[in-house]
Amino acid sequence: MKELIQLHKDEFIEQLKRFLSIPSISSLSAHKGDVVKGAEWVADALKETGMEHVEIIETKGHPIVYADWIHTEGKPTVLVYGHYDVQPEDPLDLWETPPFEPTIRDGKIFARGATDDKGQLFLHIKALDLLLKENGELPVNVKFCIEGEEEIASPNLGPFINENQEKLVCDAVVISDTSFIEKGQPAICTSLRGALAMEVTVKTANTDLHSGTYGGAIPNSIHALVHILESLHHENGEIAVDGFYKGVPEVTEELRGEVAQIPFDEEKTKRELDLDALFGEEGFTFQERVGIRPTLEINGITGGFQGEGLKTIVPSKASAKISCRLVGEQNPQAIYEAIEQHMEAHKPAGAKVEVQQYIQANPVALDSRNPMIQTAADAYEEVYGVRPLFPKEGGSIPIVEVFSRVLDAPVVLMGFGLPSENLHAPNEHFHIENFVKGMETAASYLKKLGNQ
Amino acid sequence: MKELIQLHKDEFIEQLKRFLSIPSISSLSAHKGDVVKGAEWVADALKETGMEHVEIIETKGHPIVYADWIHTEGKPTVLVYGHYDVQPEDPLDLWETPPFEPTIRDGKIFARGATDDKGQLFLHIKALDLLLKENGELPVNVKFCIEGEEEIASPNLGPFINENQEKLVCDAVVISDTSFIEKGQPAICTSLRGALAMEVTVKTANTDLHSGTYGGAIPNSIHALVHILESLHHENGEIAVDGFYKGVPEVTEELRGEVAQIPFDEEKTKRELDLDALFGEEGFTFQERVGIRPTLEINGITGGFQGEGLKTIVPSKASAKISCRLVGEQNPQAIYEAIEQHMEAHKPAGAKVEVQQYIQANPVALDSRNPMIQTAADAYEEVYGVRPLFPKEGGSIPIVEVFSRVLDAPVVLMGFGLPSENLHAPNEHFHIENFVKGMETAASYLKKLGNQ
Repeated sequence: MKELIQLHKDEFIEQLKRFLSIPSISSLSAHKGDVVKGAEWVADALKETGMEHVEIIETKGHPIVYADWIHTEGKPTVLVYGHYDVQPEDPLDLWETPPFEPTIRDGKIFARGATDDKGQLFLHIKALDLLLKENGELPVNVKFCIEGEEEIASPNLGPFINENQEKLVCDAVVISDTSFIEKGQPAICTSLRGALAMEVTVKTANTDLHSGTYGGAIPNSIHALVHILESLHHENGEIAVDGFYKGVPEVTEELRGEVAQIPFDEEKTKRELDLDALFGEEGFTFQERVGIRPTLEINGITGGFQGEGLKTIVPSKASAKISCRLVGEQNPQAIYEAIEQHMEAHKPAGAKVEVQQYIQANPVALDSRNPMIQTAADAYEEVYGVRPLFPKEGGSIPIVEVFSRVLDAPVVLMGFGLPSENLHAPNEHFHIENFVKGMETAASYLKKLGNQ
Repeated sequence: MKELIQLHKDEFIEQLKRFLSIPSISSLSAHKGDVVKGAEWVADALKETGMEHVEIIETKGHPIVYADWIHTEGKPTVLVYGHYDVQPEDPLDLWETPPFEPTIRDGKIFARGATDDKGQLFLHIKALDLLLKENGELPVNVKFCIEGEEEIASPNLGPFINENQEKLVCDAVVISDTSFIEKGQPAICTSLRGALAMEVTVKTANTDLHSGTYGGAIPNSIHALVHILESLHHENGEIAVDGFYKGVPEVTEELRGEVAQIPFDEEKTKRELDLDALFGEEGFTFQERVGIRPTLEINGITGGFQGEGLKTIVPSKASAKISCRLVGEQNPQAIYEAIEQHMEAHKPAGAKVEVQQYIQANPVALDSRNPMIQTAADAYEEVYGVRPLFPKEGGSIPIVEVFSRVLDAPVVLMGFGLPSENLHAPNEHFHIENFVKGMETAASYLKKLGNQ
């Protein structure tokens, strides 16, 4: 296998570059055509590999790509999930090389989607390619279900899974869309936070007004928005919305101990991010804050005059994008309503508040003792020489909870990214070493499952 | 004169339309060429009228246009000041007709700069045109000093006035860049607030980060900016910056009485602006808040992801534009430093704060009993049948204080705008009735000065 990989490595990287050059940004309607191109590219790659029944399935949004190879009766069936859509590229001026012109530097491939998730998805396709090249057949049955809406919270994949349980039935769902703890220390994530996102818009007067004529005497939409946003947290970092913490599991000593196993170097993090201090909910460690505690973060804000120079107006409209990470039994809908009520209650006189909900996803927990997960750990250990840790991830992959619940199959979060790979940020990249070893690990995993 | 005006009115309005179609936005470098076109247009209009020694004077920024007509020895010299630059047009989508395609509806001419200040400046040029057509000569000596940087606080006109006192010497400076109290009630403004503007930028980490991986555990630049901005005001609307109110005149019963003479209809204002409540510093009336009290307003805010949909980042950079209106003996530089110190003191852990100063201008007060102002009041009364009031204006025309101090001449703020004309906002317009009566008033003023 190692030799085969060496033989084809450069060719596979060239193919990945072509995949990464498609700007398949699912959240921007201007890129709708590019997202379709991404789906077609994936379908073609699956066909070339030898996968069968390759389909591009239309949805109300972006298409789903399905394929399978089912020829080993009596062996387990593995369903590989991934996504070919990517995050927007802005702020564009902070990219060292253009986000959709993949470039290799220092053993890393730089491009939007390199690690999240095109590189990690493509290594599974190429693992099958290698297995078929080696043996002419696969050690287990394989299905692919690849979507183009992960970065917008999978609005159409959930219904698709619900309506196609028969088609998707499997013994394990394998997803590579998470990270190592750090270089050389693999991880299989066993918990994902839920998510909730919204946009709040504050309006005051029906038009922007001259700050000389009206300033100081009428409501200012930015002042009102700032007042509302500041009210969402207490000074100690706790979220101030009534009912927000309902359903959050108690932080027991046992849970604390489990979380503390994941190494974290505060000084290194501060140095890398150029921060003189970290900040978060009082009484919790960094690992607890990002793993087992819920959050409320403002992701963007806009209002009034933003051009060059100045414009002395009292702005009539301002808005902010807000997202939450949820844990345990927190109910996204109930929390959305609590935040909406909080904002309504904290708006200053003369301000009108509108809230628009974007997404919601339930938190999910997986059992690291499941044999499908332990076999994956064996494959990692074989390739990397180190057994993976089982961290509780701070991010959200909303569809994981749906796969786990609807297909009643263990989800194996077999990540090959690194936390430093700038996902969702400028200069996103993927380590070529992990692309290569990832193929090897994925192939080894299927072999081990076939031999059981 | 009335007949002459009727004869030429339509032609003058067509000329004004051409002037208004030049997008001479001084704050945007992309419009530098248009600002030059604005200067050339003014110079040509002055030449055609019969003004002499017309010069376009280069500065470090946008040009100044000078012209004079000095042939009536022993008569007073009036210097007309105005500005041919305009505010940016955004938000463009709220304009009913494009900002630089002047359109007449309901007796109003709609365009950026219609009332601020092209329409009001042009009526002086046309008043001279009419006087010269009528008599072949002017009743007094006239100078023009027209700048292209008023909307960016006149950075080069101040030095020009200082270096050209001899050239600009005069008995009165006439400026039409202010408003009536309301339709039918003219006003000569006798007080202008000073101004101070700045931009604050907050930086946290050196890049945007994934809110799943880092959210809740590192500083968020928008949270930090919101915290700083919220700290600038107390709940009662008072400005919370130490030392901000130093130099603000005591609000005596006499001053209150003077301000209360300016009519104000709260219900009408709320209805017109679609506001269910007004807001401002506790203990002061609307007129006091906009006339004799200082303010601090956020004019714009920006940070993080602002595109369509969502992007779950912890944003690394956010900024806000802030401007103040100052009164009495408030010192702009001292207040700038106090605000800078306040923001530094209120920044949360992990945040870096940078402040960039844009402009500063001293407040100015004028004596309504000055004969040059009283004669202007006579001219208004003749044309409008109503004697003007003498309000204290909330806006700032930074150069007024410089004219008044350096040339030691009374400044006559002979405005023809209406407060409802959306200056600095979408759908700016100027009432054609006031354009026409403005010419008549300006001509009458010069005749009265010539007869004294």
